[in-house]
Formats: sequence, structure tokens, C-alpha cells
Amino acid sequence: MVTKNQIKLVKSLQQKKYRSQHGLFVVEGKKTVRELLQAGNQLFRLFVGNSEELANFKSAALVSEAELGQMSSLSNSGSVLGVFYKPTTLEVDDKDWVVALDAVRDPGNLGTIIRLCDWFGIKNLVCSMDTVDCYNPKVLQATMGSIARVNIVYVDLVDFLRNTPLPVYGAFINGDTVYGKKLPEKGILAMGNEANGISKTVESIISQRISIPQFGEQTTESLNVATASAILLNEIRRPF
Amino acid sequence: MVTKNQIKLVKSLQQKKYRSQHGLFVVEGKKTVRELLQAGNQLFRLFVGNSEELANFKSAALVSEAELGQMSSLSNSGSVLGVFYKPTTLEVDDKDWVVALDAVRDPGNLGTIIRLCDWFGIKNLVCSMDTVDCYNPKVLQATMGSIARVNIVYVDLVDFLRNTPLPVYGAFINGDTVYGKKLPEKGILAMGNEANGISKTVESIISQRISIPQFGEQTTESLNVATASAILLNEIRRPF
Repeated sequence: MVTKNQIKLVKSLQQKKYRSQHGLFVVEGKKTVRELLQAGNQLFRLFVGNSEELANFKSAALVSEAELGQMSSLSNSGSVLGVFYKPTTLEVDDKDWVVALDAVRDPGNLGTIIRLCDWFGIKNLVCSMDTVDCYNPKVLQATMGSIARVNIVYVDLVDFLRNTPLPVYGAFINGDTVYGKKLPEKGILAMGNEANGISKTVESIISQRISIPQFGEQTTESLNVATASAILLNEIRRPF
Repeated sequence: MVTKNQIKLVKSLQQKKYRSQHGLFVVEGKKTVRELLQAGNQLFRLFVGNSEELANFKSAALVSEAELGQMSSLSNSGSVLGVFYKPTTLEVDDKDWVVALDAVRDPGNLGTIIRLCDWFGIKNLVCSMDTVDCYNPKVLQATMGSIARVNIVYVDLVDFLRNTPLPVYGAFINGDTVYGKKLPEKGILAMGNEANGISKTVESIISQRISIPQFGEQTTESLNVATASAILLNEIRRPF
């Protein structure tokens, strides 16, 4: 059972404004819902579109496929939809590497970067206020459940970087090659916007400018921010 | 000027069947069109949506925005659309590393992998017959012009791998760690399908199973094939 008002509420959560207002976000797909539950995220409401899934998710309300479709933001959403309370973000600790994003706008890129942080055991992801919201439905879909295991904090990035005791590394198209660089045990890895890279104000706080060498013909196109993050996190974690 | 028949032809090229039949493919956006022209790709027809672009592309036909919209497969296509002859693929040479894809289905992933090959100077990309078509509009969009600089060949992958003189490396979730492995000067890097990885028949031909170690909590989710390709190509190219 779901009321019209509930459907309206869930639909409204596709917009960041209402996610902030209600402190809720929506997750679609049983895999991601299950991972969030396992990670201890607090559930507000759970809806399933068939009685088979009702057996898997005992606390769920059974709704029609049509009702589920009305609440969903995806064209191919599956039959499980969870509404969760936004978790309280923890303070960013300075015991390990932290990834910092400066105005990453593409939901797929943010989702991929969250998944990479999870893979490489990076517990903290710091985002500038103009980075896409991590509870955006497309971000959540791309994280494949990793959102449950990474502490994501939105901050004034300039302020944050000015006050961190960690050394700040930034990815630039014309930085020093990362190969052979002795990377410290901990630090900040700053990655920039898809079109413009790291902004001038953030650049002024960066202590080490690093780069992934290009081996093909020189072209104007840089690596995508998500693939560059993959390579740099691998460089940070590889043992030598 | 564009005739109704031409619009019909261009639209039909959104489907692989008609791309094969006519030996043509469509590229949208001036950046990619320009890169293909610079790389010497042979143009069939070029359409622009405003007279400003006509100054940049002399051989183009000026059409209305509505006509351009009818031919486009993208919601936000820009005002330049080129129809190119499919290039003749070259024989795959065995002088350097070659990337081999086994049933990669997602257009965005294939596009990203083509862009990565270009970045890392990998000249040859071999795809199984059931890998998504590289002239699919979404693939082309994700390559950001790199399609012009990588030789992409569709083959019977099992047959190809059986007959190559190169050592065949494959990415597996449970392979040997790639760190500290002395990778040869040349070889094949095989990457598998998004959901199922490398197929059993291809697996039987692989001489070296490699893996990117996981540092976070053990989860069922592997890295995405495009981000894994980024990391492994970086491992292949980094000097030590």
C-alpha cells in the first residue's frame, strides 16, 4: 500500500532541494538497497513491485508496477525501491589518503569515483559545494552500492584544503609525471572539473601537481576524470 | 540543402544493420568531426545547422536546425553532423600491446576504452563479434575523437587468440596481482564482459591471469571494465 502523498514525496526526492528538505534519498534496485541495509543505513520506507521480492524484503510494502513506475526516476528500475535517511557524515580523518573533488558535475563520473574509493579502501571523499549531489539517482546507480561504504562530505573546498595538515596533490594535464614519484603514506588527491580541470583558487593551495603521461599522439583531449582517478588511486596504493 | 531521402539515410545509420549495408557512419559534434577529418577519414556528407559553422566547414551543406534534429541521435547534438565512410581496418600488427575485448556491451565503456587506447598509444583494438559496434552513436560520443586514431577490428576472438604469437594476458577478479609482475614489451590484454567477465572459451587460451588488488572491504562488485582497463594500460606503460 502506498498513498498518493507518499508517491508525491518519493518523486520529489529526485530533486536535490527536496532531498535536503526531508533529509531522505531514494535507492532503486535490490542490490544497492541490500548493500545499504547491510551497511547499517536507516530505512524510511521500502517498496517492492511483486510478492516474490516481498519474501526477500520483509519490511517492504507491496505496490503495483504502475505505482513503482511513478516513483522511479529510471527507465529500467527493477522492482525494489528504498527511501533512506541521509546518513550523518563523519569528520574527515587525516590518517589516510582522501580524495577531493573540485566541481565534478557528471553523475556517472561521481558514481564511478565513489566505487573506486571503495575498491581502493579510501574512506573519505570531500566534494566542493558545486560538485553534483551524491544522492542524485544517476550517481547512486553508478556507485553499485559503494555509496554505503564511503564517507562523503560537501565542504568549502578552498577552506578545507587551507586547513588540512595533509600534503595536497592535484591532477593536472601538465603536472610532474606520477611515475617514480615517491607518494607519501597519506595525503589529499584533488581532481578537477570535466571541462576546466582544477579551478585557479584551488590550484593556488596545491603543493604537488601530478600528471599521467600520454603515450599516444599529442591531442587536446585529456583523460576523463573518472579514468584518471582510477589510475592515480592505483598509483597511490601500489606498493612500489 | 538536404533531401528527404538523405535524412532517411542518415537516420537509418543509427542502426548497425544499415551502417554495414551502406559502409557509412555518423559523427555528431564539431570536435569529433574535425578530428576525423584531420586523421584523413573519408567524408560522405557534412551538414551544419547555422551559417557560422559553414565558415568553418567549407564542404558542408547548410540545413535547418529541425532537419539536423531529424538526423541526430542525440538530444543535445550541436550543429555539425558528418557522415563518413567506414575506414578499412588494417591488419593487427604484433609489434606492440594489443587490447582485446570479449563481449563488451556498454557503448560508454567501449568509447572510454578507445579513448584510453589512444592516450596510451595502443594502436590496435580487437573486438569479439558480440562486442558493441564501435560506430554506434553513443560509442562515438564517448571516444571524444579518439576513434580516428585507433585501428579497431572485429574478429572471431577465439580464433584470433589461438593464432597470435603474442602472450595473452587476461583480467580476472581472482588472477595474480599485476603489481610487481614483469610485463613484456608486447602482448595482448584481454578484458571481459561487464556482467560475466571473460568467457570460458576465451579463458582457456589465456596464458596469464592478472588482477588489480582490492584494498577496501571485500565486496562482490568488481571494478568496471573501463576503469580496470585504465589501470592495466597504465601498468603496461609505466616504466618500472
